[in-house]
Amino acid sequence: MTPLNQAIEYAKSNHARYLSELKELCAIPSISTLPAHKADMQRAAEWFANQLTKLGFKNVDVLPTGGHPVVFGELLNAPGKPTILVYGHYDVQPVDPLNEWVSPPFDPTLRGDNLYARGVSDMKGQIHACLKAIESWVKQGGSPVNLKVMVEGEEELGSPNLGAFIAKHKDKLKCDVVLNVDSGILKPDLPSIVCGLRGLAYFEIWVRGPAHDLHSGLFGGSLHNPAQALCELIAGMHDANGHITLPGFYDKVRVLSEEERADHARTPHSDDEWKAMSGVSQLYGEKGFTTPERVGVRPTLEVNGILSGFTGDGIKTVLPAKAMAKISMRLVPYQDPAEVEQQLKEYLKRNAPSTVTWEVKAMGTAHPVLVERDSPGMRAAIAALQATFGVKPVFKLEGGSVPVVSMVKSQLGVDAVQMGFGLPDDNFHGPNEKLHLPSYYRGIEAFIRFFELMA
Amino acid sequence: MTPLNQAIEYAKSNHARYLSELKELCAIPSISTLPAHKADMQRAAEWFANQLTKLGFKNVDVLPTGGHPVVFGELLNAPGKPTILVYGHYDVQPVDPLNEWVSPPFDPTLRGDNLYARGVSDMKGQIHACLKAIESWVKQGGSPVNLKVMVEGEEELGSPNLGAFIAKHKDKLKCDVVLNVDSGILKPDLPSIVCGLRGLAYFEIWVRGPAHDLHSGLFGGSLHNPAQALCELIAGMHDANGHITLPGFYDKVRVLSEEERADHARTPHSDDEWKAMSGVSQLYGEKGFTTPERVGVRPTLEVNGILSGFTGDGIKTVLPAKAMAKISMRLVPYQDPAEVEQQLKEYLKRNAPSTVTWEVKAMGTAHPVLVERDSPGMRAAIAALQATFGVKPVFKLEGGSVPVVSMVKSQLGVDAVQMGFGLPDDNFHGPNEKLHLPSYYRGIEAFIRFFELMA
Repeated sequence: MTPLNQAIEYAKSNHARYLSELKELCAIPSISTLPAHKADMQRAAEWFANQLTKLGFKNVDVLPTGGHPVVFGELLNAPGKPTILVYGHYDVQPVDPLNEWVSPPFDPTLRGDNLYARGVSDMKGQIHACLKAIESWVKQGGSPVNLKVMVEGEEELGSPNLGAFIAKHKDKLKCDVVLNVDSGILKPDLPSIVCGLRGLAYFEIWVRGPAHDLHSGLFGGSLHNPAQALCELIAGMHDANGHITLPGFYDKVRVLSEEERADHARTPHSDDEWKAMSGVSQLYGEKGFTTPERVGVRPTLEVNGILSGFTGDGIKTVLPAKAMAKISMRLVPYQDPAEVEQQLKEYLKRNAPSTVTWEVKAMGTAHPVLVERDSPGMRAAIAALQATFGVKPVFKLEGGSVPVVSMVKSQLGVDAVQMGFGLPDDNFHGPNEKLHLPSYYRGIEAFIRFFELMA
Repeated sequence: MTPLNQAIEYAKSNHARYLSELKELCAIPSISTLPAHKADMQRAAEWFANQLTKLGFKNVDVLPTGGHPVVFGELLNAPGKPTILVYGHYDVQPVDPLNEWVSPPFDPTLRGDNLYARGVSDMKGQIHACLKAIESWVKQGGSPVNLKVMVEGEEELGSPNLGAFIAKHKDKLKCDVVLNVDSGILKPDLPSIVCGLRGLAYFEIWVRGPAHDLHSGLFGGSLHNPAQALCELIAGMHDANGHITLPGFYDKVRVLSEEERADHARTPHSDDEWKAMSGVSQLYGEKGFTTPERVGVRPTLEVNGILSGFTGDGIKTVLPAKAMAKISMRLVPYQDPAEVEQQLKEYLKRNAPSTVTWEVKAMGTAHPVLVERDSPGMRAAIAALQATFGVKPVFKLEGGSVPVVSMVKSQLGVDAVQMGFGLPDDNFHGPNEKLHLPSYYRGIEAFIRFFELMA
């Protein structure tokens, strides 16, 4: 057997142990956005540090940031070979609405081919698969490449402290390429590789009216209700064709090349499957674009949350003093989050009535990224996926945003290859998040192959 | 001294004790809408039952309903004289936003001329003032009229069980007139008397899109976000002139008589004071109407609450599965709450996009009421106010809704006189609710006079 086959066989014979270890990891409720889970965040970070130590990594540390810490370690035993910086995150999304989970979000539960838990696909299962690929090499003679691992705890917050962390630890993080495993494939039998990532601009909009909540029977009709005013502002952010109306929003949106468009059209997609997956009877979106284009290459604006007044059971006849909405835009090259913030403020300046006041709070940003396709990292990833799945991977424009990608490009001067094995129906960020175990196991194999191909 | 003056003097010499008793009552957190306060509701009901017993009332009972119980008692010691049914409620509004209270809502606190506590003005202070007027007569020789007292626990819920209760206890509640003390005056030195009450129709609107919360980066732009769709629907409920757009909404809205309009125009009002009281820099409302008309004689539609998606601290990139708004309309004669429900549904049928589904839940209703001005009860109330304040009371159209008024008219065939001493700036339903004590003491005197004038 070749060393590659030995490593792959080692992984296969350890599936059961890997799964039980993954369950242990997913039982830690590392919800980064909730202060009550601060101790769990520390616990998750230490879990990863402990893993790295067991794999023989050096300089393993849980390093402080302005927020949750970053786990780091390095295994530099392949002189003359490239150094790969593996990126992942140990934080997960909140679990609400909790009552819609079939099994508790932090009691990882197997049903059929899937393991159900918050964060199991996004992305504990992905980073775990990569660590198990590393283990398979380490236990079978050693890694063919030099490795650094960086696991952060604030990706679900938009990585607010990662840029500063990378800037501060430039030497420590020096590498030839970043392997970002926070990614997915299109279908269990159809691997894909990300050639572009949308950016993110996330805001809170506050609309304020009266100084305090008022009785709606006494004051209603004489003041502009801030909840109504906020609804009016949100309603105006899309026109009848689903276009976003922020002034200048589309000015920098690029037209795709013929090659990119052709690649994109090859993405397997069925609107009926899309409806089934999301549970809607009818799709919606920007006129003149297909669903894959709407979620991949076009910028979007979504309401992530809205709150005003009394929302408990029963009735309260209140005229609320204020209303708040969380709104985020997915950005495409070459939109700029800072410019989008100005566009949002300009929209509000032009459209907010003088009967209320408004405030915009920027909550998190990520720049959109275009990935260079003809690089050593991309070639290795494509070959690893093809060898593992027996199918040539499809190029994919990722709808989600991964702030690290633009950060390593600007701070370390390196590209990031996105390779992970989540599936579109994994319900990340929603209830009943799952990991498709056959894809997880294939992912381990693909990572094993990738490291050899990079050597 | 006449018996009237003796009763008034008795009340004056007992102000300090009354105040300490009122504090005791306001310390009971009888929030009807929150199930956690069920025991407090019972405690508040028993507090009133105990009061009535101490005043010599007979047949005192805490009677069950489909919801919170009703306190009843009667004092029928004035043969040949009219029977007055005093109505009040012992329930109060929720206290959120709690952090905006200067002193805790159930720790009644004196600052200046005001007592601060949730429910102190709406309406524990009002019903307490009336009971103290009764006490003043009882201790000085006996009540000049026959009295029945009914204190319910669900007014802040829209009195969902009171109609059935009155229908069941018609004989017990038989009376010549109802004195509803859940009311107020315009200013400390300007008494007013209600000649019309707006009705209420309160709804929850649910808009649903995907089967579960989705990742906004993966699905955003391809589905109609239910929060966005709800905002679009709410935004369309008022046109650019502030008119309500529900089909047929104004069909039954009556034109006021010249006399009513003239009375109404005499209501003292200043837009500047209104702005100061509510804390806005600019008013808003239906074009073509003054502020007093907008809050008194015109129907309104207000958002009382809205909730969708993630509203905690930080960011969550979720595309929510559903969105909910609490919306209520104040109705004027002769609008009908059941018809308004149909109008709302018709609006949604016509305007809701086919990309989402919607549901309307009716949460509570009250019919609007016009009060007959030339009745024995109204004449006595007007005279009592004039004698107490030294000023002729102003006729007032009440913006708020008191379901009991239409119920006693339809079930018992009697009119209700609205006489209470809350002030427009008492912050009922909001934080820092207060009772203006000089008005509370004058209220006791006015009630004492009213009972004699009714004899």
